[in-house]
Amino acid sequence: MTPATPIDHDDAPQILDNPASQRIARVAGLARRQARSKHGRFLVEGPQGAREAVRWAPERVLDLYMTEAAADRHPEIWAEARGAGLYCHLTTAEVMTAMSADAQGVLAVVSMGESSGASALEGALEGAGLVAVLAEAQDPGNAGTIIRAADAAGADAVILLRGSVEATSPKVVRSTAGSLFHLPVITGVSLEEAVVALRAAGLTILAADSRGDTDLFEAEGSAASGGLLTAPSAWLLGNEAHGLTPAALSRADAVVSIPILGRAESLNVAAAAALCLYASARARRAAASRV
Amino acid sequence: MTPATPIDHDDAPQILDNPASQRIARVAGLARRQARSKHGRFLVEGPQGAREAVRWAPERVLDLYMTEAAADRHPEIWAEARGAGLYCHLTTAEVMTAMSADAQGVLAVVSMGESSGASALEGALEGAGLVAVLAEAQDPGNAGTIIRAADAAGADAVILLRGSVEATSPKVVRSTAGSLFHLPVITGVSLEEAVVALRAAGLTILAADSRGDTDLFEAEGSAASGGLLTAPSAWLLGNEAHGLTPAALSRADAVVSIPILGRAESLNVAAAAALCLYASARARRAAASRV
Repeated sequence: MTPATPIDHDDAPQILDNPASQRIARVAGLARRQARSKHGRFLVEGPQGAREAVRWAPERVLDLYMTEAAADRHPEIWAEARGAGLYCHLTTAEVMTAMSADAQGVLAVVSMGESSGASALEGALEGAGLVAVLAEAQDPGNAGTIIRAADAAGADAVILLRGSVEATSPKVVRSTAGSLFHLPVITGVSLEEAVVALRAAGLTILAADSRGDTDLFEAEGSAASGGLLTAPSAWLLGNEAHGLTPAALSRADAVVSIPILGRAESLNVAAAAALCLYASARARRAAASRV
Repeated sequence: MTPATPIDHDDAPQILDNPASQRIARVAGLARRQARSKHGRFLVEGPQGAREAVRWAPERVLDLYMTEAAADRHPEIWAEARGAGLYCHLTTAEVMTAMSADAQGVLAVVSMGESSGASALEGALEGAGLVAVLAEAQDPGNAGTIIRAADAAGADAVILLRGSVEATSPKVVRSTAGSLFHLPVITGVSLEEAVVALRAAGLTILAADSRGDTDLFEAEGSAASGGLLTAPSAWLLGNEAHGLTPAALSRADAVVSIPILGRAESLNVAAAAALCLYASARARRAAASRV
């Protein structure tokens, strides 16, 4: 380690160097859903995710692990975590690999927090203007990418309905690139519970589906139907292969389709989500600037 | 098999039932890059991809394999392939699994065709109005999703620059959901070769990059800069982790960024590609309707 790093050697913890220790096995075990659910904690792998967890949700970071090389490469993560009074541990590369194959030297263990169920949902929807609702999303990369796109588009919350992939599975967490800590991601609610809460919060429910009779970009461009996208709204997004169920479609105020200009049958759900969320964001921004 | 399927049993080939045969091993071997490159052919796994290959590029389909169950589920694929005079083979489920774990009962072996190099590129760009150029795309799911989004947005071609993931790798092919057969996907050209060909074809080169000083949606909305998106153009899209190289940025006519309204640092490259390509498609459609 070079003297230029912010790590104070006198103060720094001992380097964890025993890959066979119980602690390391417990951390590695969080790759399994059962262990996550039993202990109420999950893994955040890689510098970007860990940095965002430390920065935006330090109260949920239970432990931060970094190799010496990673602490040299990302001194700001170590410094912020130490500054926030978090438990920070240096490890050998071997110990890091024993905990996670995808950590690139930086691994945080994070508490699940209060993000499940009806009261968490109600809190997250208070004053919300734009929300993404994932119904039966099964591909972890898509789910994570949608959470990231919702964050980028300025959404106030994401709801992963029961029956979707788990929000704390390693691949979902990695795909969010830290956005998991930028906005509430609510789990453990049914379609019906979500619909009731969204309506109570005054949100219009828009279903994104290729069978829709409202064209996304015509809705955005037309003054007549402009209200559809400028109102506070929640986008319902379906399963990768089968789209939305009839039950979900029937609960929407409008079913909106993205025009397909080529020969593709449909778009990937994460690409569709980005287009829908940004269409709402643009419409809302344009309406606000007209006021 | 039910009598309602279009398969004529007298005429149908024998069912391939030996998973240890040389033919099956040769097909399975196409999962490896070296074998694909040596034989100039690749695998299209699953009903959607195989259907689109049979429909839009039958001259490139060397063999179609279906299990009996899949032929019952997707009689139209079998009928179209037979109608086009393609070599169609029924297989046992065991033989199918020996060829591919991801085929869902339907597998096509497809010739790479003339999609590599400068002359293929020149042909693909003739009269093109919208093109996606992937520079150093490394994630196969992202690359495939971008090809699919380019197709949906009505693009005329996709260029995968040398140094990107291989267009015929199984995961790229699956992620395109058949779009690989809807528009030319050109490989084997360098950044410089692509830039020269794009300019020769009269295309404006737009780089999608968070460091850009042109806001995508302001460019789309503003009459003054509207020309940027209405002109025939090619979108340069960078690597998932590192974005575009300085060399690529320096060759663009404009560097355009997608506004980030939340706390995300950036969007996933496939989500960004969908937003950029559809912004161009919308701008071009709006301009055409004003003429």
